[in-house]
Amino acid sequence: MRFDHAGIATEDAQALADLYVDLFDVKIVHEETFDGMTVVFLAFENGYFELLEPQEEGTIATYLERNGAGIHHLAVETDDAAAALERARDLGIECIDDEPRPGAWGHNVAFLHPRDTGGILLEFVEH
Amino acid sequence: MRFDHAGIATEDAQALADLYVDLFDVKIVHEETFDGMTVVFLAFENGYFELLEPQEEGTIATYLERNGAGIHHLAVETDDAAAALERARDLGIECIDDEPRPGAWGHNVAFLHPRDTGGILLEFVEH
Repeated sequence: MRFDHAGIATEDAQALADLYVDLFDVKIVHEETFDGMTVVFLAFENGYFELLEPQEEGTIATYLERNGAGIHHLAVETDDAAAALERARDLGIECIDDEPRPGAWGHNVAFLHPRDTGGILLEFVEH
Repeated sequence: MRFDHAGIATEDAQALADLYVDLFDVKIVHEETFDGMTVVFLAFENGYFELLEPQEEGTIATYLERNGAGIHHLAVETDDAAAALERARDLGIECIDDEPRPGAWGHNVAFLHPRDTGGILLEFVEH
């Protein structure tokens, strides 16, 4: 599989995007409002940072209240998110999503429970 | 720049490596004891997860005590870590390392302070 992106919770996606563009010489390649969040994707040569700024109550707003800004999840790219979920279940990992669902940028996504993955919120993403 | 790796703090690097090998179809490409830690690198097609298990007191042991297992840092690859640090300083970012220093796997590394980078411990790594 391929590393796809790190999801980053922030109070100000535009300001953080501007900083990362200067710091890493990356480009903003996608912006949208999705599921009550401003979502900004920054492209490295081989993967993305996904900035997540909540516009209303939800999981990212709750995360920011509890933890402050920072790394929210890691996403791994797969050609078949349903098969990846099945493999996770076979390994005894609790899956937050029973099956892949529409995520940001038109991708199919599915999340695994951090309890069973070393404390990391992991996402499978199928482009 | 290129995404290089996500650094992951864990109480049991071998068990987590075994799980990720099965879950992501990745390979263990490097293991060493470095700076009082067991360090395991898992290779995706385009980047790494770096598992960090403390063998003695230090920053990772402290991180685990405070936060539990999880994502510790994100690393971005550069051809010139000293120049990347200089750019960070020019942007007003506090640098934990004044200059690149030897890191795991024989790489040169330098860390930036999370306070100035959106709450994320960021590492420049020069292979």
